[in-house]
Amino acid sequence: RLRVLIGDLHESDLGDVLQALSREEREALIALMGGDFDWTALTEVDETVRDEILETIPNTAIAEAVRELDSDDAIGILEDLADEDREEILAALPLAERIKLERSFDYPEESAGRRMTTRFIAVPPFWTVGQTIDFLREDDRLPDDFTEVFVVDPRFCFLGTVSLDRLLRTKRPVRIEEIMGEVTHSVSATDDQEEVARLFERYNLLSVGVVDESDRLVGVITIDDIVDVIEEEADEDIKRLAGVGDEELTDTFVSAVRSRFIWLLLNLGTALLASAVIGLFDGTISQMVALAVLMPIVASMGGNAGTQTMTVAVRALATRDIETINPIRFISREALVGLANGVLFAIIIGVVASLWFSSTQLGGIIAVAMIINMVAAGLAGILIPLALEKAGADPAIASSVFVTTVTDVVGFFAFLGLAAWWFAIS
Amino acid sequence: RLRVLIGDLHESDLGDVLQALSREEREALIALMGGDFDWTALTEVDETVRDEILETIPNTAIAEAVRELDSDDAIGILEDLADEDREEILAALPLAERIKLERSFDYPEESAGRRMTTRFIAVPPFWTVGQTIDFLREDDRLPDDFTEVFVVDPRFCFLGTVSLDRLLRTKRPVRIEEIMGEVTHSVSATDDQEEVARLFERYNLLSVGVVDESDRLVGVITIDDIVDVIEEEADEDIKRLAGVGDEELTDTFVSAVRSRFIWLLLNLGTALLASAVIGLFDGTISQMVALAVLMPIVASMGGNAGTQTMTVAVRALATRDIETINPIRFISREALVGLANGVLFAIIIGVVASLWFSSTQLGGIIAVAMIINMVAAGLAGILIPLALEKAGADPAIASSVFVTTVTDVVGFFAFLGLAAWWFAIS
Ligand SMILES: [Mg+2]
Ligand SMILES: [Mg+2]
Ligand SMILES: [Mg+2]
Ligand SMILES: [Mg+2]
Ligand SMILES: [Mg+2]
Ligand SMILES: [Mg+2]
Ligand SMILES: [Mg+2]
Ligand SMILES: [Mg+2]
Ligand SMILES: [Mg+2]
Ligand SMILES: [Mg+2]
Ligand SMILES: [Mg+2]
Ligand SMILES: [Mg+2]
Ligand SMILES: [Mg+2]
Repeated sequence: RLRVLIGDLHESDLGDVLQALSREEREALIALMGGDFDWTALTEVDETVRDEILETIPNTAIAEAVRELDSDDAIGILEDLADEDREEILAALPLAERIKLERSFDYPEESAGRRMTTRFIAVPPFWTVGQTIDFLREDDRLPDDFTEVFVVDPRFCFLGTVSLDRLLRTKRPVRIEEIMGEVTHSVSATDDQEEVARLFERYNLLSVGVVDESDRLVGVITIDDIVDVIEEEADEDIKRLAGVGDEELTDTFVSAVRSRFIWLLLNLGTALLASAVIGLFDGTISQMVALAVLMPIVASMGGNAGTQTMTVAVRALATRDIETINPIRFISREALVGLANGVLFAIIIGVVASLWFSSTQLGGIIAVAMIINMVAAGLAGILIPLALEKAGADPAIASSVFVTTVTDVVGFFAFLGLAAWWFAIS
Repeated sequence: RLRVLIGDLHESDLGDVLQALSREEREALIALMGGDFDWTALTEVDETVRDEILETIPNTAIAEAVRELDSDDAIGILEDLADEDREEILAALPLAERIKLERSFDYPEESAGRRMTTRFIAVPPFWTVGQTIDFLREDDRLPDDFTEVFVVDPRFCFLGTVSLDRLLRTKRPVRIEEIMGEVTHSVSATDDQEEVARLFERYNLLSVGVVDESDRLVGVITIDDIVDVIEEEADEDIKRLAGVGDEELTDTFVSAVRSRFIWLLLNLGTALLASAVIGLFDGTISQMVALAVLMPIVASMGGNAGTQTMTVAVRALATRDIETINPIRFISREALVGLANGVLFAIIIGVVASLWFSSTQLGGIIAVAMIINMVAAGLAGILIPLALEKAGADPAIASSVFVTTVTDVVGFFAFLGLAAWWFAIS
C-alpha cells in the first residue's frame, strides 16, 4: 500500500519525503519501491541527501536509473559524484546515451550545455503542418511537455522555431518554413546558466535552443529548469553576502562548522586589524575612557551604511540593471547619500555625546568622524563590488569583508586620531 | 527612422532605453512614437521611472493605453498610482474592461488576483478536439502565447486543463473531457504571489488557473510573470536583510537617503545600547586599556556568526525548506555549530591576546567571552527569525538589528564583565 501511495507522489513531494527521512529509512524506502521509484526525485533533494542516497546504491543500478531520466536531470545527479563513480556509471550505459551525456559533461559547470535536455522535437522546414502534427501523434518517444517545435536543416543547423499554438492555429497544408519564427534567441552551450536565465526573464521565453560551436542545435533549455537556476543564483548571492557559501539546511554539522569557520577566520583577521588601529591610540584612550565607550558607534554606523550600498551594488551587478545606468552617476550618488546621512547622524550623535559626557569637544570630534566614515562607507560599498566584478571575482563573495574592514579601520582611525590630535593641540 | 527602430524593440529593450534616458528625453520619445509606443515597456522599468513617465501623460491617454494591455500588465502599471488618478483612468474605460480591472483591484496587493490575466482560453468539456482547434484558428482575440486550454462548465466552474501538446497529439473526434487532466493545481485569487511562485517551482507549471470564492475560473497566471515574482521576492529578501527596503537603482537621491536613514537610526539605537554596556565598565577599562583594544573582536565575531545563522534561517523560511526539517534539530545544530566555532576561535584569540599583551589572564578571559558570544550568536541567529515568522512579521526585515544587538550586548558584557569580575577577585 505504501508502494502505491509513494508511487503516485510528484517528484518534488517524493523529494520532500526523502529529505525528511533518516539515512536508513531512505534506503529501506528505495529498496521497497524497487522499479517504481521515481529517480527524478533525486533532482529535488539537497546535495548532501543526494550523495548519501547514491552512496548506498551500486553504480550499475544507478546506470539503470539514469537511462530513465531526461538528460538534464541525469546530469544534475551525476554532476556531483566522484569522477570514478561517474565514469563507471557512464561506461555502463548504451553507447548513444553515453555519448550524449559525455558531450554535456564536456561543457563547463553551470553552463547551458549542462542544463539542456537532448530530447526535443526537430523537424525540417519543408514539412507541412499536417505532416508535423501526424509525426507528433505517432511518435511516443517524444518529450512529455513541450511548447515549441524546432526547425533544422539536414546538417542540424538551427533555422527557427514554431510555437505549438501557432501550429494548432494553422491549416494542415501550410509548410513549416512559412510559419516558422526566425531564431531571435539562442544560446551557446558554453554560456553561463545565469546569462541564460537573464535571457528567459527578459524575453519571457518558455524554452530556448542551445547550439554548439558550429551552430548545430544540440539541446533545449526549458523554463522549469531556469526557474531553479534563478532561485539557486539568488540563494547563492544572499548566502555569499553573509559568508555561508553554498551551505544547505541538510548539511552535516561538520561541513557547516567548516564552511563557516573560513569566513569567520577572515573576519578575525580584519577584526585584529581594527584592534591594531585602536592599539595605536591606547595612550589617548587611557586618558579619556569615553573614547572607548563611543568608538564602536562610529564603526558600526559605517559598517551598516557600507553594507546598504554594497547590497544595492551587488544586486545591480547580478541583475545586470547596472548596465542601464552610468557608473559615475551611481558612484557619486552613493558618496552623496553617505555624506547626507553622515551629516544627519553627525548632528544626532554629536548632541548625544556632548550631553552624555558633558563635553562639546567630544561631541564635535565624533560628529566629524561620523561624516568621514559614512562617506568612506558609501565609496567602499560601491567601489569594492565594482572592482571585484572587473577583476572577474564574484562581488557577492568577498565584498562584505572588504567593506567592513574599510569602515572599521576608517571609523576607529578617524575618531581616535581626531581625538588624539585635538587633545594634543588643545 | 528612430520611430521604426524603436517600434521594433522588444518591450524589455524599450524599457532599458527608457531607463537610460533623462526625464525630458523620455517625454520626447513617447510623444514622437505616438500610437506606436509599446506601453508594455512600462512594466519593465523601475517604479520611479514609471511614476515619472505617467505623471507627464494625461489620464485619458493612459486609459487609452491601458486598453491595449493585458490585464496583468495594466494592473502592474495602475497599481502604484495615486488613488484619484487610478479611479479617473478606470472611469474612462469601457464598462467590461473597467469591471475586470476593478475586480483585480479588490484582491489584496501581491495576491494571485493581481498577477492573473483575464485573457485565457476556456472551452466546455463536451467540445471535440476538432471543434476546439477550429475555435483557436478562427478567433483572433485570443492571447498571444498560451500553453493550456482551460475547461469550464456553464457556470464557469473550473473542471480541468488540456495542454496544447495533448491537443495536438489527439485525433479530432475525441471529446475534450476524455483527454482533460483534472485540476491538480489551482490557486485562489487571494493567495499570496509568493505561495503561487512556490507552486510553479515545485510542480514545474507553465500556467495555473485562478479561482474565486465560488470556485469559478477568473484568470490565469503565467510562468513569465512568476519569474518576475521570484526575482522580486529574492531581491526583497536580500535588500531587507541589509536594510535598504525596496530601494531601486533609479530611486532619487532624496528617497535613497530617507529609506536608509530609518534603518541607520535603528542601528544607532542599538549601538548606543552597546555603548551603555561598555560605559558600565569604564572603571575597568581605564585600569586596563587592552580591554578597549580587544573588545570589538568579541562583538564582531559574534555579529558575523549570528548573521551566518540568521541568513540560513531566513532563506529556509523563505523557500519553505524549513518545513521538511525538525525545528528542534535545527536550533540545536546552530547552537552546536556556534559552540564548535566558539571553541576554535577561543583558542586562536586566547593565544593571540596572551602573546600580544603578555597576559594569559587576558587571553583566558577573551577566550571564555568568545565561546559565550558565539553560542549566543547561534541561538539568536535561529530563534529571532523563527520568532518573527511566528509573530507574522517578515523575518528578513528585522532579524539583523535584533541579532547584532544581542551579539554586541552579550559580547561586550561577557568580555568586560568577566574581566571586571576576575580582576576584582584576583
Ligand atoms: Mg528542481
Ligand atoms: Mg551544483
Ligand atoms: Mg553562477
Ligand atoms: Mg519578464
Ligand atoms: Mg528539465
Ligand atoms: Mg526538472
Ligand atoms: Mg551569482
Ligand atoms: Mg509593487
Ligand atoms: Mg511578498
Ligand atoms: Mg522545479
Ligand atoms: Mg503576463
Ligand atoms: Mg510581463
Ligand atoms: Mg518575502
